[in-house]
Amino acid sequence: MSANTFKNLVALREEMKRYHIDATIVTSLDAHHSEYISDHWKSLEWLTGFNTSNGTAVITATQGKVWTDSRYFLQCEMQLVDSGFEMMKEDVPGEPTVTEWLAENLEEGALVAIDGTLFSINATNRLEVFCGQNGFRLATDFAPFDKIWAERPARPDGKIFIHDEKYAGEGAASKIAKVLDAAQGLGADATFIAALDEVAWTLNLRCDDILFTPALISYLYLSHDRKILFVDDTKLTPEVADYLKALGVEVEPYDRTAHYLSKLDNHTVLVDPDVVSDAMASALGNCALVYAKSPIALLKAVKNDVQIEGFRNAMLRDGVALVKAFKKIEELAPTGSITEYDAWEMIKAERAKSDMYRGESFYMAAGYRSNGAIVHYEPSPDKSPKLGRGGLLLCDCGAQYLDGTTDITRTISLGDPTPDEIHDYTLVLKGHLAIATQLYPVGTFGCQLDALARQFMWKDGIAYLHGTGHGVGHFLGVHEGPQNIRLNYNPTPLTPGMVLSNEPGIYKAGKYGIRTENCVLVVPALHDDEFGDFLKMETLTLFPYDASLIDLDMLTQEEIDWVNAYHERVFNSISPFLTPDEAEWLKTKTKKIVK
Amino acid sequence: MSANTFKNLVALREEMKRYHIDATIVTSLDAHHSEYISDHWKSLEWLTGFNTSNGTAVITATQGKVWTDSRYFLQCEMQLVDSGFEMMKEDVPGEPTVTEWLAENLEEGALVAIDGTLFSINATNRLEVFCGQNGFRLATDFAPFDKIWAERPARPDGKIFIHDEKYAGEGAASKIAKVLDAAQGLGADATFIAALDEVAWTLNLRCDDILFTPALISYLYLSHDRKILFVDDTKLTPEVADYLKALGVEVEPYDRTAHYLSKLDNHTVLVDPDVVSDAMASALGNCALVYAKSPIALLKAVKNDVQIEGFRNAMLRDGVALVKAFKKIEELAPTGSITEYDAWEMIKAERAKSDMYRGESFYMAAGYRSNGAIVHYEPSPDKSPKLGRGGLLLCDCGAQYLDGTTDITRTISLGDPTPDEIHDYTLVLKGHLAIATQLYPVGTFGCQLDALARQFMWKDGIAYLHGTGHGVGHFLGVHEGPQNIRLNYNPTPLTPGMVLSNEPGIYKAGKYGIRTENCVLVVPALHDDEFGDFLKMETLTLFPYDASLIDLDMLTQEEIDWVNAYHERVFNSISPFLTPDEAEWLKTKTKKIVK
Repeated sequence: MSANTFKNLVALREEMKRYHIDATIVTSLDAHHSEYISDHWKSLEWLTGFNTSNGTAVITATQGKVWTDSRYFLQCEMQLVDSGFEMMKEDVPGEPTVTEWLAENLEEGALVAIDGTLFSINATNRLEVFCGQNGFRLATDFAPFDKIWAERPARPDGKIFIHDEKYAGEGAASKIAKVLDAAQGLGADATFIAALDEVAWTLNLRCDDILFTPALISYLYLSHDRKILFVDDTKLTPEVADYLKALGVEVEPYDRTAHYLSKLDNHTVLVDPDVVSDAMASALGNCALVYAKSPIALLKAVKNDVQIEGFRNAMLRDGVALVKAFKKIEELAPTGSITEYDAWEMIKAERAKSDMYRGESFYMAAGYRSNGAIVHYEPSPDKSPKLGRGGLLLCDCGAQYLDGTTDITRTISLGDPTPDEIHDYTLVLKGHLAIATQLYPVGTFGCQLDALARQFMWKDGIAYLHGTGHGVGHFLGVHEGPQNIRLNYNPTPLTPGMVLSNEPGIYKAGKYGIRTENCVLVVPALHDDEFGDFLKMETLTLFPYDASLIDLDMLTQEEIDWVNAYHERVFNSISPFLTPDEAEWLKTKTKKIVK
Repeated sequence: MSANTFKNLVALREEMKRYHIDATIVTSLDAHHSEYISDHWKSLEWLTGFNTSNGTAVITATQGKVWTDSRYFLQCEMQLVDSGFEMMKEDVPGEPTVTEWLAENLEEGALVAIDGTLFSINATNRLEVFCGQNGFRLATDFAPFDKIWAERPARPDGKIFIHDEKYAGEGAASKIAKVLDAAQGLGADATFIAALDEVAWTLNLRCDDILFTPALISYLYLSHDRKILFVDDTKLTPEVADYLKALGVEVEPYDRTAHYLSKLDNHTVLVDPDVVSDAMASALGNCALVYAKSPIALLKAVKNDVQIEGFRNAMLRDGVALVKAFKKIEELAPTGSITEYDAWEMIKAERAKSDMYRGESFYMAAGYRSNGAIVHYEPSPDKSPKLGRGGLLLCDCGAQYLDGTTDITRTISLGDPTPDEIHDYTLVLKGHLAIATQLYPVGTFGCQLDALARQFMWKDGIAYLHGTGHGVGHFLGVHEGPQNIRLNYNPTPLTPGMVLSNEPGIYKAGKYGIRTENCVLVVPALHDDEFGDFLKMETLTLFPYDASLIDLDMLTQEEIDWVNAYHERVFNSISPFLTPDEAEWLKTKTKKIVK
């Protein structure tokens, strides 16, 4: 692919020359800072050939550089061959950052240009300060791709649909009122929302615009007197148009968002400076702005009873599909007839049998043997290796259902597990069970619990570099904030109703990767008159662990009892939906383990 | 006591009236923000009768209020009777803060006055902003106590002595160079040090000016061209005077610190805005100031090999004294002939037999039965209860030796332990062992480990409100930063050479308190080519746990093995210094425990 992109770089440089631009910056972000972005905004890939969730290209008349992090070093170097770009390493001591490089390579008075619709308020401010300190000029209106990218994909035109209150558990009018209340608490009487999942949650609307996250490309402005959804009108069905009208929500064209914002005044508008773009903040120039983290994230994170019931149903449905698929995978793998990618196809096929299914929630990481040790490995249809007898298969996948989002990782042995595989699987399981079984006082943060999942492997000198848990959306992004379980400081108290993943792992380069992941729900655990209220995790995911990989001597009786009770729950919940053969298979997988 | 202080309040109000002051603020802090302060600065106690480490009095013409935190509520209310002051509760929702109360009770234009030598730069700045916002005026030169407090104790006049390099492990010249290097790293070419333990550490000087912490009342200014120790010259012996001269350190009178600072210029001076007073910062008005946390805290926290060897020797010496004392306490307690306070006296007497002993490192908390549940309980000579048969005795005490500082808590049963006592003791022990045995990657913060000590009791709905560990100084403050093990965020990586306490606890009101505390040293644990370097704690303290309070069924074999190995080490280290009777007693206390 890369060889074909060089002409695109040439075209960009022509545009830069036309406007006397000395350097421009192109990132992998869309206008909404989404996790998964639509092809329309993949200008970094079009320009460099590098397909990534984290890339920043800097282009001058003679040089092209692309910054990315260690997850992508190998892929980036490969994809940049003949592109006219060179890779730069992010977060590596001694390697220059984007701004350090610019400071070194531009002359005083140089013009740096960006597309202000794609840079957040904070990112733009930092760049402005940097340019000021270095004697550069900054232009924020350089948006060349519509012109030079002939085959640029249009914005997605998927039809918006209503996420029924029977799944959402709360009407949009009530949510809008809560959002405006929260904005008022921050000193604002209006808010402008750019995060796509926040728009979708607030209005109970969904769409398939973007892979994996059922959000709609849109902006939302809310105040007590006006509520405006900025969206391409081709996406509206008559039903949705009526629904919005009934809600008192006006509709204006997505392309004209800035224009309409510039006509608003007499309001104090809350904007999240890490998400809302500089262009939109500038358009709100007739209003006062309050910069704060969006309060919608927390409102959205605490699920109501209807959502929780939906999660439970989705997990059951997902468990049934996974049992059916894994039984087949286990049978076919030793014959050498299926690949890692086929395994995903088989899981998808089982999930798709439910009319509640709306696609996967992320790109499956199915890593066989040493591929499992590559944390962000994604098998491709054309070149994923065949499974065989022996070795570990790590499968991390999830689904979107109308009533909930799932995310599960299981690592299974395809035969004759080695002592190392068993030892490390059990270390991961012990960490996973520590989170699953821990009680903690009200007010506890996830960052205070994270080491509980690591304590056992740390004693063996083993560590993993990712977090132990992320928030999970409800028929929305599979990764959402503000809560998480990470070593990094995050003062968000775990609150009943929050859903998180619980996913410690061990990755041994060249050998195998092991991760065990369930979704868990924060629930009240007990009240003590002297010591107050305690919370715990209720495990939502329903699928057995691989008992052939458990070293019982490494488990306490409490851990064994928990696994047995969980397996009993898995069998009792799922078996009614299985064929006799499948039920028999599950019976074996959930057989009581005894030390 | 309190009834006698009312006239002091009257005298203060007369001074306020003379200067047209509408409100003044008197705190429990000294000019150096020390943990333990000399009588000279106990003006809050003189004024209110309240003897505390955390109090803030606000005085107007008609009202007197004293803020303190929950540790002191009971004591404060008692001591304020008839004082003219009323207690206010800090950190209690709904209760006004000092500034909220001032805002409510003063009129626009009111004059608020403080003594700027006793308020830090940051505290003064916050007060200035507050006064500005509320239309009050702020004066920072109101220092009435020299005049109205007739019997005000002089500043302590203890003789300074040199802390020999054979204990300190590094000469003062080398430390001064490191401090100036660190200041340079923060953009300063000089530093002004107000924290007493930082002055003492930098110059390898000690003194008995203050109870428990062997520091000298002084300030220190360091630049490449001038080094000035501000100290009362009566404190200098000829030996110390010669030592300072050889180091190139000038000596100026403590009382004239501000005067000499005001003559300095052409320097950029690093000051810690949470410790250096507003008065001293103002005096440095001809210099540029850099505000930053003092880099000395970290330099001081990482002990060198000589200090570590000293710590090991001090712990052994302390262990011997404790074995001798605890044997007697155990024998005498059931006879009803000794009090909690006597227990401390007995421990002190044993410690004092060493010529390395320089006093206790803090006020012993020896709580028998329900007194043990009062976290900051301190027995007094006149009214501490007699020990008896049965019940738990919690003893938290420590010593200052020339080669190290100790801090230990043991909880012992005085006979017939109850199932609850055994259960809770074992929960505390499991948390304590979790910290003692955990490996963790280089870069780990104490706040990431803290929950490991709490996990077992949390599962039973039990929590403690203090931190699990604090830094420990070397023949200096028993509490020092920057490292600690707490739930609160503190991004200080645990570093080999740091000494901390490891002290989880359980407090059941009206019943008992249990805490088990050892000092631990951060040491390298292992290197893994794939996962990097790991650290662990080496336990320094040498004294047995109370095996009669351990429920073996609640311990893992790993935990039992660790306790047995530790007890073996305790016996082998200490027994050579005991009489045969004492050795026999220790033999019993360290007998192998078997499930």
